Amino acid sequence: MNLTQRFRPSLALLTDMYQIAMAQGYWKNKMHEQEAVFHLYFRKNPFEGGYTISAGLEDAIDLLQQFKFEQEDIAYLQSLTGSKEQPLFDEGFLEYLKNMSFECDVEAVPEGTLVFPNEPLLRIKGPILQCQLLETPLLTIINFQSLIATKAARIVDAAQGDRVIEFGMRRAQGPDGALSATRAAFIGGVVGTSNVLAGHLYGIPVKGTHAHSWIMSFKEEQTAFAAYAQVFPHDSIFLVDTYNTLEGIRKAVEVAKQMRENGSELKGIRLDSGDLAYLSIEGRKILDEAGFPEVSILASNDLDEYLIQSLKTQGARIDTWGIGTKLVTAFDQPALGGVYKLAALKDAEGNWEFKVKLSEQLVKVSTPGVLQVRRFYKNGAIVGDMIYSEPLGVETPATMVHPNDPTQRKIFAADCTSEDLLVPIFQKGQKVYSSPSLTEIQNRTKQQLGLLHETYRRFLNPHAYKVGLEAKLHDQKMNLVIHLRKTEQQKNHD
Amino acid sequence: MNLTQRFRPSLALLTDMYQIAMAQGYWKNKMHEQEAVFHLYFRKNPFEGGYTISAGLEDAIDLLQQFKFEQEDIAYLQSLTGSKEQPLFDEGFLEYLKNMSFECDVEAVPEGTLVFPNEPLLRIKGPILQCQLLETPLLTIINFQSLIATKAARIVDAAQGDRVIEFGMRRAQGPDGALSATRAAFIGGVVGTSNVLAGHLYGIPVKGTHAHSWIMSFKEEQTAFAAYAQVFPHDSIFLVDTYNTLEGIRKAVEVAKQMRENGSELKGIRLDSGDLAYLSIEGRKILDEAGFPEVSILASNDLDEYLIQSLKTQGARIDTWGIGTKLVTAFDQPALGGVYKLAALKDAEGNWEFKVKLSEQLVKVSTPGVLQVRRFYKNGAIVGDMIYSEPLGVETPATMVHPNDPTQRKIFAADCTSEDLLVPIFQKGQKVYSSPSLTEIQNRTKQQLGLLHETYRRFLNPHAYKVGLEAKLHDQKMNLVIHLRKTEQQKNHD
Repeated sequence: MNLTQRFRPSLALLTDMYQIAMAQGYWKNKMHEQEAVFHLYFRKNPFEGGYTISAGLEDAIDLLQQFKFEQEDIAYLQSLTGSKEQPLFDEGFLEYLKNMSFECDVEAVPEGTLVFPNEPLLRIKGPILQCQLLETPLLTIINFQSLIATKAARIVDAAQGDRVIEFGMRRAQGPDGALSATRAAFIGGVVGTSNVLAGHLYGIPVKGTHAHSWIMSFKEEQTAFAAYAQVFPHDSIFLVDTYNTLEGIRKAVEVAKQMRENGSELKGIRLDSGDLAYLSIEGRKILDEAGFPEVSILASNDLDEYLIQSLKTQGARIDTWGIGTKLVTAFDQPALGGVYKLAALKDAEGNWEFKVKLSEQLVKVSTPGVLQVRRFYKNGAIVGDMIYSEPLGVETPATMVHPNDPTQRKIFAADCTSEDLLVPIFQKGQKVYSSPSLTEIQNRTKQQLGLLHETYRRFLNPHAYKVGLEAKLHDQKMNLVIHLRKTEQQKNHD
Repeated sequence: MNLTQRFRPSLALLTDMYQIAMAQGYWKNKMHEQEAVFHLYFRKNPFEGGYTISAGLEDAIDLLQQFKFEQEDIAYLQSLTGSKEQPLFDEGFLEYLKNMSFECDVEAVPEGTLVFPNEPLLRIKGPILQCQLLETPLLTIINFQSLIATKAARIVDAAQGDRVIEFGMRRAQGPDGALSATRAAFIGGVVGTSNVLAGHLYGIPVKGTHAHSWIMSFKEEQTAFAAYAQVFPHDSIFLVDTYNTLEGIRKAVEVAKQMRENGSELKGIRLDSGDLAYLSIEGRKILDEAGFPEVSILASNDLDEYLIQSLKTQGARIDTWGIGTKLVTAFDQPALGGVYKLAALKDAEGNWEFKVKLSEQLVKVSTPGVLQVRRFYKNGAIVGDMIYSEPLGVETPATMVHPNDPTQRKIFAADCTSEDLLVPIFQKGQKVYSSPSLTEIQNRTKQQLGLLHETYRRFLNPHAYKVGLEAKLHDQKMNLVIHLRKTEQQKNHD
């Protein structure tokens, strides 16, 4: 069951008011069917990190396939009034919305792909009115899921092959916040979730054992363990810190011995508080000495990639990590600042006019064109991403310009291979993309991270991966910016 | 349209796996209908602040009213297998779930109420199996909405009577994350949202004008303003920073003059980048000198309560604040750490056994009992919240003990008035609460904040509001903790 199926009513109103206001503006100015190109991109990797994992496309596809204003949506828009108590929206415009069907071309980077600042994750080309309305929902879906997939990938990386399980539902933004987070965390590499609804809807393995309340509902901790083992003889993980952790582990061992006599094995213990390094080391000793080297030690308690790394450095004997709050909220940076910018508009003669949004900082000036990203490979590693404009094409040899220092250029040698990252998703509103399964997407993440040298993956001051503009595109952009700034200046002097 | 109506399928599976595992454990041990009491509370105000605003109850009520396992949910649970490829759940247990209907008593603090650390926001009493299953969804809903309502209240406080509008959808956790955030932000005091779907579903006023893309889709900025004014003659707010902000404001003035000739007035301008203090002061001058003192100046760009306060100190002439990312993600602390703890369990003889979860830190030890919160007032201000246990009652005069220093006690004098914060929401599974409208809840927030002296509301080192345990409850808790620690110690010495 996908996003739109589980959401009622239609999601057509899931957008910012100004998009609908502008839509009416385009319509009244008879510009609404003018062909436009918008790109969705971000300007900085999250968490001061060296990479981002793209995610959310499948929900975006679903939203685009169902993009339709229903009578209920129209009725709501009809009810809105402006300052003079007059209807805000024209009946003709609302009629147009009601009859409109999605007809854009969409290209996007597949989910689970490594992406970097300033390169488009998604490009939409079509009637400006439609592109405009879709800005907010596309950003909502892709910003959040890419953020969480990236956070999960970092946590999984820190765990160095240990199993990572997501269980953050109680700290997510409501039901769908939790579902989206779980989906994205799985893309990033977690092996399971506590979220049963996500298990049902996405087929993600669900995990979980018992809470403190289970222990507290019995008179004795050991009785509680034994009772749990009776219910789940082959799937018991005991939470050992309700009263005193090491004492709890000793009681778990006693129950594990009884279980073995009855033909089953304790699966694991869970630590949820205290000094996880010390307790896991001591716990491992207690378990090993009692003949339970196979019993797993799962730890949780506000963990993230930094704490996992620290615990590993301290020799902690944890083999399974339960991650909640810090993962589902991306605690240290809870938003990816993705933006969606107009880059080209076709004039009445069918020629592209290229568009930039100026900014005092050159790095924040948007890039004009109909953009594509070409990724270059050498000896099995990725060596650079070149943003180019399809109408301009690519010079031979491929030359890209450093985004902040135009005097630095990188020429990709002939022995590099390359591929274009944006692939067709919709053509004239029809889906042309064969969606991978969630497990295939998770595998893609793993494969992609394998292409990236560990210096780009470290948490502190990672190496900056090279992304630049193709030389002709760079020149086009500079000329356009210089022209716009000159125009502004002249006007200021008038 | 409420949460469960807009969400398909049923939300019964919206919980952590371990809740369902424990539910089966209780069922197999024939404990599932034992009466339990759980409390939902948090341990620390968010944002290093002095208060929290409760929110989310209405969605929680809706979830509880619809709490029912459908055949589809049961079929999914049937499909789950454990380590030995055997079904994880017993058919008899699943049959029990399927026939189960909600029959708990629920008391809760009304939305829009000031709440403080350690006091229950919600108390649920009923069959332990039901209470357990509901832990995760109740936490998800109440944690997030209380967090955002609090953030919004702080931002509105900083704005000192200026209008605050929420427009964070693009940075929220998907459709429902955005809807929940908008609802909670309105409770906290924002006057409108950009989220059209939230407008439709909750009746919150929707706001919005145009984006940079509107300007960029015209050859000239001024033409773009004029075209927009034609479409919305009485509701135009021009975004003036696409190229050069002050130049943009001058063009806005030109268009405003034309508008006035045609019988309409420009409503406002919006600043979205650059030095908002400088630009708003200069912009105000330009507007005033041209005869437009009524034109509003709206500002946005990653604002929060601290930036608003700073801009006010600098004399910024902003009268309307658009707040996105920092509000809907609660950026500086994106989770409220609410917990849900077992506090009492009725034994076979019908007597309450009181329960605590130990912790090395006494402040983290849960409080046993069937708790209620009594708030005391003196001369129109609130002076302290006393947590008491209903079975123990309250001594006369009411005496409460400092949570971290039992030698400090506070006696509430006879001239204090008081009220109990938790009110009945469900009795035996039937709703007995008359839900207020969202506007009534927003008004309650305002009224509640008015009860709190500003020293508790400041952002840096706010005064700590007094919350303590009623003396008899304090003694009961201490005795239980000492007893448990002694039991542990004896065992360690055996």
